[in-house]
Amino acid sequence: MSSSGAATSSATVAPALPSAKVIHVDTRGAIILSEESPETRDSRGIYLPNHIEPVSHIAVDVGGSLAKVVYFTRSPDPPPSPSVVATRGSSPPSSISTPRSLSPSDLSTTTEDSSVAPACSSSPSAAGSKLTGALTPLVLGQQCSSNVNSADGLSALHDNLLLRQRSLQPSTRPHNFPGGSLNFERFETDNIDDCVTFIHELISRSAEVNNVSIEEMRRSVKIMATGGGAHKFYELFREYLQVEVRREDEMECLIEGLKFITLIPDEAYFFSDELIASVSHPGNKGVPPLPESIHISLERPSPDPPKFGVTFESNPSPQLPCLLVNIGSGVSIIKVDEDGKFERVSGTSLGGGTLWGLLSLLTPATTFDEMLALSEQGDNSTVDMLVGDIYGQDYSKLGLKSTMIASTFGKVFKKGGKQGTFSPEDISKSLLYAMSNNIGQIAYMNAEKYGLDRIYFGGCFIRGHAATIATLSYAIRFWSKGTKRALFLRHEGFLGAIGAWIRNIDSETEE
Amino acid sequence: MSSSGAATSSATVAPALPSAKVIHVDTRGAIILSEESPETRDSRGIYLPNHIEPVSHIAVDVGGSLAKVVYFTRSPDPPPSPSVVATRGSSPPSSISTPRSLSPSDLSTTTEDSSVAPACSSSPSAAGSKLTGALTPLVLGQQCSSNVNSADGLSALHDNLLLRQRSLQPSTRPHNFPGGSLNFERFETDNIDDCVTFIHELISRSAEVNNVSIEEMRRSVKIMATGGGAHKFYELFREYLQVEVRREDEMECLIEGLKFITLIPDEAYFFSDELIASVSHPGNKGVPPLPESIHISLERPSPDPPKFGVTFESNPSPQLPCLLVNIGSGVSIIKVDEDGKFERVSGTSLGGGTLWGLLSLLTPATTFDEMLALSEQGDNSTVDMLVGDIYGQDYSKLGLKSTMIASTFGKVFKKGGKQGTFSPEDISKSLLYAMSNNIGQIAYMNAEKYGLDRIYFGGCFIRGHAATIATLSYAIRFWSKGTKRALFLRHEGFLGAIGAWIRNIDSETEE
Repeated sequence: MSSSGAATSSATVAPALPSAKVIHVDTRGAIILSEESPETRDSRGIYLPNHIEPVSHIAVDVGGSLAKVVYFTRSPDPPPSPSVVATRGSSPPSSISTPRSLSPSDLSTTTEDSSVAPACSSSPSAAGSKLTGALTPLVLGQQCSSNVNSADGLSALHDNLLLRQRSLQPSTRPHNFPGGSLNFERFETDNIDDCVTFIHELISRSAEVNNVSIEEMRRSVKIMATGGGAHKFYELFREYLQVEVRREDEMECLIEGLKFITLIPDEAYFFSDELIASVSHPGNKGVPPLPESIHISLERPSPDPPKFGVTFESNPSPQLPCLLVNIGSGVSIIKVDEDGKFERVSGTSLGGGTLWGLLSLLTPATTFDEMLALSEQGDNSTVDMLVGDIYGQDYSKLGLKSTMIASTFGKVFKKGGKQGTFSPEDISKSLLYAMSNNIGQIAYMNAEKYGLDRIYFGGCFIRGHAATIATLSYAIRFWSKGTKRALFLRHEGFLGAIGAWIRNIDSETEE
Repeated sequence: MSSSGAATSSATVAPALPSAKVIHVDTRGAIILSEESPETRDSRGIYLPNHIEPVSHIAVDVGGSLAKVVYFTRSPDPPPSPSVVATRGSSPPSSISTPRSLSPSDLSTTTEDSSVAPACSSSPSAAGSKLTGALTPLVLGQQCSSNVNSADGLSALHDNLLLRQRSLQPSTRPHNFPGGSLNFERFETDNIDDCVTFIHELISRSAEVNNVSIEEMRRSVKIMATGGGAHKFYELFREYLQVEVRREDEMECLIEGLKFITLIPDEAYFFSDELIASVSHPGNKGVPPLPESIHISLERPSPDPPKFGVTFESNPSPQLPCLLVNIGSGVSIIKVDEDGKFERVSGTSLGGGTLWGLLSLLTPATTFDEMLALSEQGDNSTVDMLVGDIYGQDYSKLGLKSTMIASTFGKVFKKGGKQGTFSPEDISKSLLYAMSNNIGQIAYMNAEKYGLDRIYFGGCFIRGHAATIATLSYAIRFWSKGTKRALFLRHEGFLGAIGAWIRNIDSETEE
């Protein structure tokens, strides 16, 4: 047995990947769409006004816990200002900080409800209800444009994009008009059938809308599969969907996705030191209390939080070299050179799956978001052994403050270790801190080893959760003595899927 | 909040500590005594035939979970060959691998029973029953020697050393004859009163045996206190025992203890690669199965296990420079230079306290040894997500074997995360692996950073437990690609206490 943190020389990939600037997606004027609901979170669409996709394809990244889907649908119209809606779209703290247990009916009716994430789209019926726009088949007659816009087949789907398209004059629009949106969907890997069903419906509806036969549609659509599941579920995708399925290397896709997403304005962000302190050291002397007002925007980082809070990269530039720490069920740590060459240099088996697993056994929470909500109400000092508990004071000589955690869960055994003795809130906070701290510590040591100052955190573990982001940020600031910075992404969980989509764009131009 | 893994420049200690050779304890001919019972484990006495302690003193290292006591008692006679008895002393696997829950009566009658460790000596009455030999007061009349040997007050205590002394001719022995034993005791920090009671009884019995007044005895005995509790419980020790209490820096004592203990023959040991593989990858292809026969000696490493198993340093030499990883409730990682200078360079809050705490909530085990016993029966692949679970195969390109752990506990959430769904054995194995792996990984990165090849693991977390030792060893071999070695110590938990005892020897000579 060993942790999956293997670092092998064979992991170096040659030849070099195309560096950011040669990605053949036109990102000029790209904007992140408003949240359709507070639950869509990292699934906000990205509008690319200048990109033209000659042939549609669907990218799928099947990880250990979640399957992510990315696809592009054309639409000529810029959406309303996202920043405003994105902020408004944030849910009030009450709904975040108060955990609620779900009834099965909740599950069957809500698809992207945050309280069932990462178990999104857990019912096939729900899976279909998120269909956004239509794919573009290879052969598209003139009738296409009108069909694209008279999207009766989709009208029942409350599709923002197509609803907007209704108001337009179809006849005036050419076939391959530029512009459209990248769409993002998440499914539980254990419910992989939902994912396949979703794609199946997307393809058949697109055929319908474009007025081409399903066979025609299948011939033109391609599945770009990556992640561990690309191997495990290859046959399932190919046989059920009857479309071409291409497998792409997971790490290559992650890096490709990172290079692309960091070119999107307002995608990358980081917490200010004050904010990190407010969230990770609440109530400490010299630490300003976290204003209730910014709690909202913290939950779902958006481009206009209070000045001292979150900073967004509004004028992004290529971000290589950097370290990418991808936190899914487990953790992969990838060094990316300036020329795009990369190596998986480390990792740890203590990742999102570990926290979900532990908290699902130790708390009544049934979803990861419930666990995160619990952690916000907790006080870890009831279960963690602090330096002060051992020394009765600071251990100044070593620079250990009395408030530092000497031993995670160190008080539990001493207090008898009975289930029910400790509050789910305190347990959740303690373990969220522990996992985030540990990942931050190992990430820092690798960043230091390879002399990298930019440390990107990706993966579905983060979920834009303030405490997680603050703890990871704090760990990097703490260990690097302020010389390195933790950077985050609004589409943190979709790097691999985006990369798989990108790689096809490139490959087509190569063909 | 942050983990206690602080590394601050202020942690560098100057002036340099005396390097190993100037320690004023004569270790020539030192031998580790036989186990009085399988439970004494790391508490075996150490016989020092050539050391003379002019004045007795008692060293106490009070950590977050355990308080360790070390003191020297004179005895002219070499004990019987330890190696033989030590091996025989090992308990059969059955008693190790079968967890049993204790009744309160068990607790009150057994002192060092492994099944109540680390909660040893949890009853005051029991605390007294382990008294070994007598301390030596400053002024010792001729009557002393006879009293030392007619130890009626101790005859009921089944004390091996004094029982042997009975057979000797008192009159023939001078006052300050050389030779004697270092004695080791462990108590729960939460039961610190037991520790104080034990020391109180030791002092008063010593007065009795030496026929001096208790006041006289108190004047000559000194307490050397270290660990966090040295500050927290300083007043308690001073007022209750009415003896001088000196506080010693924790890190300095750890290093002093390490330098001393590595001079004791058959103290330091390491696992062979075959053994590491047998224990940490049972049943893997190409891995020889672990012979039942060596299971016994593995549980309590002793000097004569099967050749391919454990190697003991029978001709020890100074071991600096090295990295010391002290695993107690939390973990301290200390870099020790060749000249004895040291720095606490890192640490993690994920330590012994974390594992004890988690397993006390997740399993019926009530003691740490029960948890370790459970882990030996477990199969972590039922709760851990392996690389093969995600990829359906190896991820050869990255050198990730399908049997590697991708996500600790990664299957728990997916399987519904209900208490009772998973066996305590599997949970114990998974979390023991995870903690040991993580500590090994962080330890390796520090060893690499500072160019150190010798990595010593100390602290009460290890407890001579084969799976723990094998996992830590494997992690070091894995990450260092076989260039670095994990080293272990039979008195792993007593480094700080031994160091505090040593430091007084030095200071006396300085006076």
